[in-house]
Amino acid sequence: MPVELYYWPMIPGRGEFVRLVLEVADVDYRDIARLPVEEGGGIDAMMTVIKSGIDGKIPFAPPFLVDGDRLVSQTAECCIYVAERNGLAPREEALRLFARSLALTTADFVAEIHDVHHPVGTGLYYEEQKPEAKRRAEGFRRERLPKFLNWYERVLTANPKGPDWLVGDRLSYVDLGLFHSIEGLGYAFPKRMASASDSWPKVMALVARLREDHRLRDYLSSDRRMAFNEDGIFRYYPELDAEN
Amino acid sequence: MPVELYYWPMIPGRGEFVRLVLEVADVDYRDIARLPVEEGGGIDAMMTVIKSGIDGKIPFAPPFLVDGDRLVSQTAECCIYVAERNGLAPREEALRLFARSLALTTADFVAEIHDVHHPVGTGLYYEEQKPEAKRRAEGFRRERLPKFLNWYERVLTANPKGPDWLVGDRLSYVDLGLFHSIEGLGYAFPKRMASASDSWPKVMALVARLREDHRLRDYLSSDRRMAFNEDGIFRYYPELDAEN
Repeated sequence: MPVELYYWPMIPGRGEFVRLVLEVADVDYRDIARLPVEEGGGIDAMMTVIKSGIDGKIPFAPPFLVDGDRLVSQTAECCIYVAERNGLAPREEALRLFARSLALTTADFVAEIHDVHHPVGTGLYYEEQKPEAKRRAEGFRRERLPKFLNWYERVLTANPKGPDWLVGDRLSYVDLGLFHSIEGLGYAFPKRMASASDSWPKVMALVARLREDHRLRDYLSSDRRMAFNEDGIFRYYPELDAEN
Repeated sequence: MPVELYYWPMIPGRGEFVRLVLEVADVDYRDIARLPVEEGGGIDAMMTVIKSGIDGKIPFAPPFLVDGDRLVSQTAECCIYVAERNGLAPREEALRLFARSLALTTADFVAEIHDVHHPVGTGLYYEEQKPEAKRRAEGFRRERLPKFLNWYERVLTANPKGPDWLVGDRLSYVDLGLFHSIEGLGYAFPKRMASASDSWPKVMALVARLREDHRLRDYLSSDRRMAFNEDGIFRYYPELDAEN
């Protein structure tokens, strides 16, 4: 039976991190909320699981996966689940554990990126927190963004197998997480990211390579890949962007 | 060789979530940054690992664990690592996976609790973001805190094994995570939490039971258990608290 992915159908959002792993691992999956109601899809089908759970297992929020009697929620855990069962995670235990730590750090990074446009609260619109967002964006561009990207760059540099991948000597799900984060940052902060190749050459080389990688190319040009927009995590608000 | 826990020595912070699991699982561990320099401890010993990593595995931030050649970072992943190897996680796979999802949701909750006093940025002092914190605190008390606690209450209610524990029929690490979160909320938001037993009776019953549980009692009364303070995650700022 195909794995079921549940996520909001109108944004790439956090669901896209899971979708990328499913696509690259070539897993048979159903993207429930994006399917027509006649095929058991739609937002209502998602809300039913959020309300009732699966055998007492209730997700806090999308994205989540349902695989038989298993319910896996939280973006990082969904990625880990799919990747470790489908050849997109390191096999050696110490590397597997480090990859998990890395996936959770990427989730933290994504949460901070989101909170740039929602510093006061997720319950309010961006328009209700613009001055605060502007202030937070400055600290994000100057301190938090470099702190995270410096760290990814250091991890690539320190990889005993070379700087091509974050962990081990082949593509794993954590590279896909970094890839999508950088794509999103390029969309949301084009001025800030214009000099990224100078600051974080190994990170940006990895992303450029993945953009052309045969394992991603088909998916990225398909209509399953959604465009970024101003309802998701990565939003382009020119007033929050600057060269530094 | 004992497992090494690395975390800031002056606050309970996120490290306390890991420490609780280590203590209750009765794991032999060394709390490195709190040990004297002569015993290989101190903050410098921690900074060395943050700077150099372990065989190319570099943590983004404390807390992290070092166990031989393994480096595990991120609070939730540290708790998962210790619990799954030491009898504090469910054995059945579907429950094990749901527990992981739960642990990551608790990490998100803790991040939101932290951001109440730091909405604009972690690089600024609380005193530099007091008006924004006050605004965020209102949304937190009225929407986010109930959203999370309602969910824990629903998870307890839906547990096919009864409402004593979040997952399965015995204590697991996710109960400890909820326990410490509630203890911290009681410290930071005493007015808001005064009516918690009416709103979330099963959650508060679990916490009350754990407070007296023989597996925790010794630790909680030891000098290894640190008091909450205004440098950590859970801070008592009266101006951020209210009954609703």
